[in-house]
Amino acid sequence: MTNASTDLQRVLDGRWVEVRDTVREHLGSADWATPTTRLPIAEYRERTTGQLLRLLAEPWAHVGFSADPDSEGDIGGALTLFECLGHVDLSLFVKVGVQVGLFGGAIAGLGTQRHHDEYLERVARGELFGCFAMTEVGGGSDVARLATTATYDEDTDELVVHTPSPSATKDYIGNAAKDGTMAAVFAQLVVRGRSHGVHCVLVPIRDEHGAPMPGVTLADCGEKIGLPGVDNGEISFDQVRVPRANLLNRFGSIESPAPGEPAVYTSPIESDNRRFFSMLGTLVRGRVTVGGGAGAATRNALTLAVRYGARRTQFTRGDSDEGVRLLEYATHRRRLLIPLARTYALALATNELVEDLHELRADGEPEEMKVRRLEEQAASLKIANTAHATATIQACREACGGAGYMWENRFGALKADTDVFTTFEGDNTVLLQLVAKGLLTQYKDSFDSFDTREMVLFAARHAAESVVERAFGGSIVQRLIAGAPGRDADNALEDRGGQLAIFQDREEHLVSTLADRMRGRAKEKDGEDADPIEVLSAVQPHMVAAAWAHIDRLLLEAFAAAAEGCESEETRSLLCTVCDLFVFSTVEANAAWFMEHGRISAAQSKAISRRVDELCAALAPHAETLVDAFGLLDAWLDCRLLDRA
Amino acid sequence: MTNASTDLQRVLDGRWVEVRDTVREHLGSADWATPTTRLPIAEYRERTTGQLLRLLAEPWAHVGFSADPDSEGDIGGALTLFECLGHVDLSLFVKVGVQVGLFGGAIAGLGTQRHHDEYLERVARGELFGCFAMTEVGGGSDVARLATTATYDEDTDELVVHTPSPSATKDYIGNAAKDGTMAAVFAQLVVRGRSHGVHCVLVPIRDEHGAPMPGVTLADCGEKIGLPGVDNGEISFDQVRVPRANLLNRFGSIESPAPGEPAVYTSPIESDNRRFFSMLGTLVRGRVTVGGGAGAATRNALTLAVRYGARRTQFTRGDSDEGVRLLEYATHRRRLLIPLARTYALALATNELVEDLHELRADGEPEEMKVRRLEEQAASLKIANTAHATATIQACREACGGAGYMWENRFGALKADTDVFTTFEGDNTVLLQLVAKGLLTQYKDSFDSFDTREMVLFAARHAAESVVERAFGGSIVQRLIAGAPGRDADNALEDRGGQLAIFQDREEHLVSTLADRMRGRAKEKDGEDADPIEVLSAVQPHMVAAAWAHIDRLLLEAFAAAAEGCESEETRSLLCTVCDLFVFSTVEANAAWFMEHGRISAAQSKAISRRVDELCAALAPHAETLVDAFGLLDAWLDCRLLDRA
Repeated sequence: MTNASTDLQRVLDGRWVEVRDTVREHLGSADWATPTTRLPIAEYRERTTGQLLRLLAEPWAHVGFSADPDSEGDIGGALTLFECLGHVDLSLFVKVGVQVGLFGGAIAGLGTQRHHDEYLERVARGELFGCFAMTEVGGGSDVARLATTATYDEDTDELVVHTPSPSATKDYIGNAAKDGTMAAVFAQLVVRGRSHGVHCVLVPIRDEHGAPMPGVTLADCGEKIGLPGVDNGEISFDQVRVPRANLLNRFGSIESPAPGEPAVYTSPIESDNRRFFSMLGTLVRGRVTVGGGAGAATRNALTLAVRYGARRTQFTRGDSDEGVRLLEYATHRRRLLIPLARTYALALATNELVEDLHELRADGEPEEMKVRRLEEQAASLKIANTAHATATIQACREACGGAGYMWENRFGALKADTDVFTTFEGDNTVLLQLVAKGLLTQYKDSFDSFDTREMVLFAARHAAESVVERAFGGSIVQRLIAGAPGRDADNALEDRGGQLAIFQDREEHLVSTLADRMRGRAKEKDGEDADPIEVLSAVQPHMVAAAWAHIDRLLLEAFAAAAEGCESEETRSLLCTVCDLFVFSTVEANAAWFMEHGRISAAQSKAISRRVDELCAALAPHAETLVDAFGLLDAWLDCRLLDRA
Repeated sequence: MTNASTDLQRVLDGRWVEVRDTVREHLGSADWATPTTRLPIAEYRERTTGQLLRLLAEPWAHVGFSADPDSEGDIGGALTLFECLGHVDLSLFVKVGVQVGLFGGAIAGLGTQRHHDEYLERVARGELFGCFAMTEVGGGSDVARLATTATYDEDTDELVVHTPSPSATKDYIGNAAKDGTMAAVFAQLVVRGRSHGVHCVLVPIRDEHGAPMPGVTLADCGEKIGLPGVDNGEISFDQVRVPRANLLNRFGSIESPAPGEPAVYTSPIESDNRRFFSMLGTLVRGRVTVGGGAGAATRNALTLAVRYGARRTQFTRGDSDEGVRLLEYATHRRRLLIPLARTYALALATNELVEDLHELRADGEPEEMKVRRLEEQAASLKIANTAHATATIQACREACGGAGYMWENRFGALKADTDVFTTFEGDNTVLLQLVAKGLLTQYKDSFDSFDTREMVLFAARHAAESVVERAFGGSIVQRLIAGAPGRDADNALEDRGGQLAIFQDREEHLVSTLADRMRGRAKEKDGEDADPIEVLSAVQPHMVAAAWAHIDRLLLEAFAAAAEGCESEETRSLLCTVCDLFVFSTVEANAAWFMEHGRISAAQSKAISRRVDELCAALAPHAETLVDAFGLLDAWLDCRLLDRA
């Protein structure tokens, strides 16, 4: 590695560099990495389960998988470790995520002391394998309306968990097909005939011999597009009884008000809806994790494709027999270096988000708006990282031609494994609308709530004048914007502060016009509320555009702060060029919007495309340096693609 | 099926409707369709080889796989049959393509009577399995410079086929890993110490027991991302001797000028380069086939995703419990209906191309420019169909959420199998530049030639004023354009002729400005020719844009002719709305270009996006009708995704 890549790696590694180095040291070998041959599903599942157990046996791997009920553990270290597992193998990454992040996270975040004492240590050691049973066949993204019930039976002091119809079957549940012996089941809690909304109940699903518990029906989802090491399955319940104590009762409990009196439902949060979204909020780390893993997978793919492009020749230079390297071609540079620039932006923004989450918890109980804003940022980076992974890994495969199609070079696994990331932990299309709702309402409503009518009415009523809140980069970004030429100055895009102002302006304009349109649409017909579905449909593309503008602004702020704050002059200069490419290519990709709204002229738009070409050309000689800084694991670099380039 | 879909299906089925109906009747069952479970590679290969043999045993399947050396067979029927195999299973599609299209096609197109007599019948019956051994590890797309040699040994009257270095190993060759007993090997032909460029030689590679022939080394490429039923492998030769008669000698022969005199090289085409590209030209059907198969795969995916979107509900309508169907959401409509409109355009343009190729051959020996134009159109539709397949199948998977990720619903197979289509039979990035070169030089140079220096100099010298040649739709298109309001009229985009004029103008402008830039760049430095790689790099994004503008124009002409020429008023009206969506969404996707070049105003650009939303909303109620018209096979409709929607 060159000095420049060592320096850059330090910037990208961020605060939890020891976690990253530990993974490089311990998990860099071929027995951990995604295999170069395709394994049968049963064999892959065994491998992944074995890796999970080996990992959980490592003391260093408990950095953040804290089983200590009195401590949240090292949140930042834990999230960084998850991200690094994305560099190793994505089945392992998801398997650990299901076991520790989702199942363990549900117990930690939704349970109380007695649950922590009873389960967390066993979960962290892999002695108790668990499922996070939320999604249902019929419900999909609409988790607030899931149909499974948990009915309190006062006679026996038990909860009766039941699947009322085939469409209420829990589906796609990780750990359900093979390993899981218990499930954290999300169900409508019914006490004395009244439903109190969705709560989470621990239900044993397999006995010690691996057979389904009485009343529990399990099925194997079988082959998926990817993630062969994760045993997804279906679960349904026929009047399954568990003790009342199995209710994870941090947000809602069934207790006897006084000795001898019958137990009743109590909760610190009155509204069923708000309570449910508070529960979901504790799971925000899942979205950060998925985004981080998608980022890691993207960096793996880009490292291979960029190295190949820097070495592989195609066709010859004029008269001579000298081959032309792929990265000498302008189209090839655009294919790889534009995604590379955005990959840098995403990695740096994800680091900032992890720090913010870490500090939030370290602060003690945080204020509600701050939490919602972090939930929104986690969703934003989940969307951005996963959409980018899908597009970029595809581009990398194509950029390696026929060699890219061979399974041994791992693009197939990267593509297949990450493919569902845009869907799970919140479908991107739904999340984009939640992000837009958050921008409109300035986080006055629960983040995850997606009730069309509520959303439309709420947004129309509460839509604020858009006030952009600085998320990342704080004082550096403020200083840059303050010193920038005006947004309309000809050279605004050549100045970092000007770039920041332009990105901010795009977001503000989209959010404030969205608010106007929603207000206008919501009250259309003689004082009658318009059909909320029609209102939503009319503004949905606008909502999505506003959310993307917000995401791009977050990314630029994080990138600008990291680049401009970089100490080494040489590294700073290189990083600033990558940041410029991110800026110009983002404006180019949205050039129609900028022209439609009088932000740039036709001539400026053409000049921006030329700048993208120039910046790609300027970065091409540094392309290997830029990907070496990702610190790919040894086993991933030992690749036939590169041997034969 | 509704009347409208029956009617639409007639339009889409085109001229060789009996071929399509035969496939629907004979290959519609589950034993032919892509399996809903993932088979181990060995089993899939057996299945596909078995299907190939069963297919070749069917008399109707010989419609165009003519083994009769005196007849070209029914070209249109054959190409349509290939396309229909893309609806059945893509491994079978490629396996048949390798055996009959490439191997059989090489013998038919590059060989002479004695080769036809000896081999074609056995190839068509599956008694002789063959490989098309062109691509080399080191060469990739640069096939004119491949390194394998075939040296004539006059002492023994044999050709010695040799792999001079590991990078000359033939790679990714279908039928090489398991079934192939002979290969059509592309090699530099050396006679009496002089190389005459690339020729094709038949070389036995396996004996009757399946063991490699002496001097032949075979290796299995193993698992690929997709196409598990196709046994791709590597082949290399260590001084392997074959009789002189094994040279496929239509374009170049080694003959004795008179009895007793030593044999010498002769050819009807003087230039090595032109000869080679004439040889490649005979293989144009391969590109039509790949484009057609990609189109079929896309229609399979869209049928599933659109049906799911029309039935599946997510979230509820306001106060009531009534679910909202996915296609009621504007973003979901955009995701599926915009690609659906382009899919119609592609299907109709592909039908026209097949007819043109059919008629060309029926005309007898065609003139050179006409052939080059057809080669260019085949490349254009190969690019357009395959790029569209990659993007659309991905969008379909995502539009079906978690269910889309389950292997049983076949999106995984469709994605994986078609993934290499953008790469093989001409990498799309290379082909886009060849299309642009053809537009610049008005087909004065061989189509497939990609020598950077030649191309730059030739294009700079010969670049014509752009004259758009009408490819598809002929008189109908002429009439529509003639009756159109001026390009600059405000309502031009609402008139079919105006739309055609706008698409044509975009292509003309891009091609003529490209010519200007190439001329300017090629002579930059004091009369010295500029470095061709630098010239190319400077104009490459412009070339690609010009080629896409050309492709879009071809698509619109075919669509307009089919829609406006439709007899039933109801069907015509529906088809015209789909065509409008294709037009407006294409302009929207290129809105920056149209604004940069003063073709539309900012206000018009915004209005175009609103029109796209309106058209999507207008088509949503007809979405199932539109996909039913694709005539999906029974086994593909029998799908858990749709059962559970």
